[in-house]
Amino acid sequence: MIRVGIDVGGTKALGVALDPDGVVIAEDRRPTPRGENSLAPLIDVLVELSSSLGVEGSLGIGVPGLVTREGVLRAAPNLDGVADFEVGRLLSERLGHAVSVDNDATCATVSEWQLGAAQGTDNMMLVTLGTGIGGGLVANGAVQRGMNGFAGEFGHMVIHPNGPRCPCGRRGCWERYASGSGLAMLAREAATGRRLRSVVEHAGGDPQDVRGEHVMAAALEGDEDALAVIDDFGRWVALGLSNLTNAFDPEMFVLGGGLAAGAELYLEPIARWYGELLYQPHLRPLPRIEFARWGPLAGAVGAALLPGL
Amino acid sequence: MIRVGIDVGGTKALGVALDPDGVVIAEDRRPTPRGENSLAPLIDVLVELSSSLGVEGSLGIGVPGLVTREGVLRAAPNLDGVADFEVGRLLSERLGHAVSVDNDATCATVSEWQLGAAQGTDNMMLVTLGTGIGGGLVANGAVQRGMNGFAGEFGHMVIHPNGPRCPCGRRGCWERYASGSGLAMLAREAATGRRLRSVVEHAGGDPQDVRGEHVMAAALEGDEDALAVIDDFGRWVALGLSNLTNAFDPEMFVLGGGLAAGAELYLEPIARWYGELLYQPHLRPLPRIEFARWGPLAGAVGAALLPGL
Repeated sequence: MIRVGIDVGGTKALGVALDPDGVVIAEDRRPTPRGENSLAPLIDVLVELSSSLGVEGSLGIGVPGLVTREGVLRAAPNLDGVADFEVGRLLSERLGHAVSVDNDATCATVSEWQLGAAQGTDNMMLVTLGTGIGGGLVANGAVQRGMNGFAGEFGHMVIHPNGPRCPCGRRGCWERYASGSGLAMLAREAATGRRLRSVVEHAGGDPQDVRGEHVMAAALEGDEDALAVIDDFGRWVALGLSNLTNAFDPEMFVLGGGLAAGAELYLEPIARWYGELLYQPHLRPLPRIEFARWGPLAGAVGAALLPGL
Repeated sequence: MIRVGIDVGGTKALGVALDPDGVVIAEDRRPTPRGENSLAPLIDVLVELSSSLGVEGSLGIGVPGLVTREGVLRAAPNLDGVADFEVGRLLSERLGHAVSVDNDATCATVSEWQLGAAQGTDNMMLVTLGTGIGGGLVANGAVQRGMNGFAGEFGHMVIHPNGPRCPCGRRGCWERYASGSGLAMLAREAATGRRLRSVVEHAGGDPQDVRGEHVMAAALEGDEDALAVIDDFGRWVALGLSNLTNAFDPEMFVLGGGLAAGAELYLEPIARWYGELLYQPHLRPLPRIEFARWGPLAGAVGAALLPGL
């Protein structure tokens, strides 16, 4: 049977069709409707996409935000007008069959667990390092969604009570340090005086314009200052992973999100600091840390797998 | 059938016998053997206790430390000479029937989940506030032990990277702030100049001797300074609970450990700060926070229930 999954993002909805072996046999995308009254057009787009991908009664949808266990999108900062959006019910009325809906990071977790870096494990955590940090977890061989479906909001663990203000209203959330925005902040903080000259040049000359990609570009050229910022960034990522290990003791972490594009740069410092920061590392096999295999398709592939879970 | 459970602590081993309705029908205790070569005598004590309690083929043991899924106690700072102590295998050879072994905080989790404050929930976390912080979690209706059996080490989540040094070697672990030791530290920090006079009097006059119980004694007399320290303490407890909520989205928290004796003092500030610190509290039912029902018997009662899980 063809399984279709669609990942709804802030700018586009990306769909895939999987054959029974989990191979992507089709891919399609449409712009996400924006503005007031965009929810009905969004449902239209999802119906179109699933038809174009040859849906056969099994459809999964990944959406960015807090999704209840009943498939209601409670809130989504990157989608216009969303509040208690019953995307699952509305779609299944249109299509005449069941539709599974879950958070996009949960979908990415499923793709890596079932068909990616974490295949074969019963205990894993996915952490997406993007503009912010999201994630999901599998324990005892099952996706853990928590009471309301909101488990996996790792980015808003406070790791520094006097840290920088987070848009969520608190201070020192993990994603202030260990996301793409965090990397940029660490670079701007380091860019004083003559330091980080190469990074600042990549940003066009103004330290305030430095973004994560400028640090990455300079680091790929071997710039020592940029590599030092990435080392610091790796320590912040590792600190959160070590906290999650203490709480949940996973067999492995899969790191996804936009920063996975720079895996070769980030993996070594993250893994080294993780070994330093882990509680009682001598008493356990060190959990593996790998970057995600699915890249931008992770959400859509995982969405396609939702109905079978 | 009578179910027997024994909680092995640093100073005593406490056993209970439960009738089929989960009622404690017998209780017994023995000093924990100390010093070199104390492991063989400890096995003797556990055999004696289980006999005296009328064991009928179902025995559970709770031990303080990291326990593998195979029932091996890897390390236990409060038991002499423990390293890879196969307590389960040794005991079951002596007794001629299976023995279940788990971490004492996991046992306490089981007691509160099956027969205590969290009866009827499928998603709960127990957090023990004692000298340090331990815990356990139930998700999707099952105890979650993690890959190695080490899940629930909540006390060593770092919540302040520049915080006070922890005996585990890192800085700013949650239990530096939110345990009995943390309460004492917060009080000593506050006891400068004329402040906290009443608390310091309870400690015998020297601020350096202040322990959590002195803060509690002064607070119970209505001392404003002591109540302010407890409010601050409540914020640190709530910060960690809020982090755990973001990660696992439990239906409720049960707070156990020594500080549960002062529940009436701690619950209000903890719950108030938790409401302040929780991520997107308007989108979810606020998880309940209650103190444990089982008190000092929690570990033994939970141990008795282990074989049935």
